Amino acid sequence: MTGKTIHELEVGQEASFSKTLTESDVYLFAGVTGDLNPAHIDEVYASNTFFKTRIVHGMLLGGMISAVLGSKLPGPGTIYVKQDLRFKAPVRIGDTVTAKAIVKSLDLEKNRVVLETVCVNQDGLLVLVGEALVSPRVSKG
Amino acid sequence: MTGKTIHELEVGQEASFSKTLTESDVYLFAGVTGDLNPAHIDEVYASNTFFKTRIVHGMLLGGMISAVLGSKLPGPGTIYVKQDLRFKAPVRIGDTVTAKAIVKSLDLEKNRVVLETVCVNQDGLLVLVGEALVSPRVSKG
Amino acid sequence: MTGKTIHELEVGQEASFSKTLTESDVYLFAGVTGDLNPAHIDEVYASNTFFKTRIVHGMLLGGMISAVLGSKLPGPGTIYVKQDLRFKAPVRIGDTVTAKAIVKSLDLEKNRVVLETVCVNQDGLLVLVGEALVSPRVSKG
Amino acid sequence: MTGKTIHELEVGQEASFSKTLTESDVYLFAGVTGDLNPAHIDEVYASNTFFKTRIVHGMLLGGMISAVLGSKLPGPGTIYVKQDLRFKAPVRIGDTVTAKAIVKSLDLEKNRVVLETVCVNQDGLLVLVGEALVSPRVSKG
Repeated sequence: MTGKTIHELEVGQEASFSKTLTESDVYLFAGVTGDLNPAHIDEVYASNTFFKTRIVHGMLLGGMISAVLGSKLPGPGTIYVKQDLRFKAPVRIGDTVTAKAIVKSLDLEKNRVVLETVCVNQDGLLVLVGEALVSPRVSKG
Repeated sequence: MTGKTIHELEVGQEASFSKTLTESDVYLFAGVTGDLNPAHIDEVYASNTFFKTRIVHGMLLGGMISAVLGSKLPGPGTIYVKQDLRFKAPVRIGDTVTAKAIVKSLDLEKNRVVLETVCVNQDGLLVLVGEALVSPRVSKG
Repeated sequence: MTGKTIHELEVGQEASFSKTLTESDVYLFAGVTGDLNPAHIDEVYASNTFFKTRIVHGMLLGGMISAVLGSKLPGPGTIYVKQDLRFKAPVRIGDTVTAKAIVKSLDLEKNRVVLETVCVNQDGLLVLVGEALVSPRVSKG
Repeated sequence: MTGKTIHELEVGQEASFSKTLTESDVYLFAGVTGDLNPAHIDEVYASNTFFKTRIVHGMLLGGMISAVLGSKLPGPGTIYVKQDLRFKAPVRIGDTVTAKAIVKSLDLEKNRVVLETVCVNQDGLLVLVGEALVSPRVSKG
């Protein structure tokens, strides 16, 4: 199980990972990160917010992007350099999110790859956009 | 438990959250996000990488920053607009990480706040730098 | 808390364990085993499958059988040698499953016990059948 | 993300998944399945057993095999029909296990595939052997 080197990548290549996000995901994420914001874990509080209900941590979607980069494209061996995230719309418990990464440009000299990273929900609504900068695995030979 | 409005914030204000990151944190984060990259969950694989051992998911540190913004500064009611993350050094299982946010600038008209966001390990080494853009809670009156 | 020796067992003896299987069980099982099959964690994908919704990992039912063997019949001290599992029907999130083990035959000389192992849902529908081969705890004296 | 149909498989094809199994994995698996056998979760009890320490649930390795079948080979869309498991050696907390599936035979008429399924530890020791029978995804056209 090894990732792609920069020579195995080309602009436009893409990979994705989908998951229905549950209350259990949100609560475990809260516990692991310490993000106990009541918007995520207090339904009484959340019902009085603009979003009317508890929402999924934006950074959990960041984690799903990391899942695509680190296990699929480019995959194992990749070094994560930089990630920009812009949160576009709330994700509610029970939504199904697809995180996708698309190769945007390759810098062969510096072994750097830029990928467009997006998350969409089950209705195709864009919930997160961003850009990743990574160093793919360097070939052994 | 309510967060600060933009009128209660000033440049230079800061807040932080610290946690020793355990194997259990890394494994739960892997399960929730789907990030099963062997660099995080396979010690045999990881011992042959540049880092020599399993490392903590960078995005888990992103979650700790989100924890500071959403529960402390500005706190509950904040809408997360944008986050840039630059991963500077690996975090190993057992490391104690402090995530910190410092108010950098305020846009009263648009109700937008920029915060510098950093994570350091127990030796003071910078492991993550970045910048957040948020909309603090709007005052009820 | 010690298990039965082969001399304390007889053909026809049985024990069982019941549990309502939740979304949280399925998600934790996915995280621990790495089984991120969309049939288990992606409701949009699953709604287009033959089963129409996310189903419980079959091997989670295997774990419930292991629970009966290792904690009840024969119980602690048992060595698990072999298990056959035949998946007969899907288990949906929210179903209540009873795992049952029934002693089928005893080999006193080799200290081996064969048990019939089944799982049924709340409607009595057989969802899993199989057979276990175990070595019960050997008496100290 | 779709799995292979039987026409995309050939004898000898293989796929694997590796993970270092932690205390956290064992405890979550115990909680989900109800398998609270002290051999897995009581170090005082376990230190007096033949294995001298807590061991990983055999059925958790079964789950790793299910992960390979359901997400890699044949992958999503596969129906799990039957699995035989023979536990050959104990896995201890901290061991790194590789679950592997190898296509053994194809029955095109019945859309059934037999795969050899094995788990080995970090020293190459065989800890589980078995055989799976699955129905791969049927091609849409």
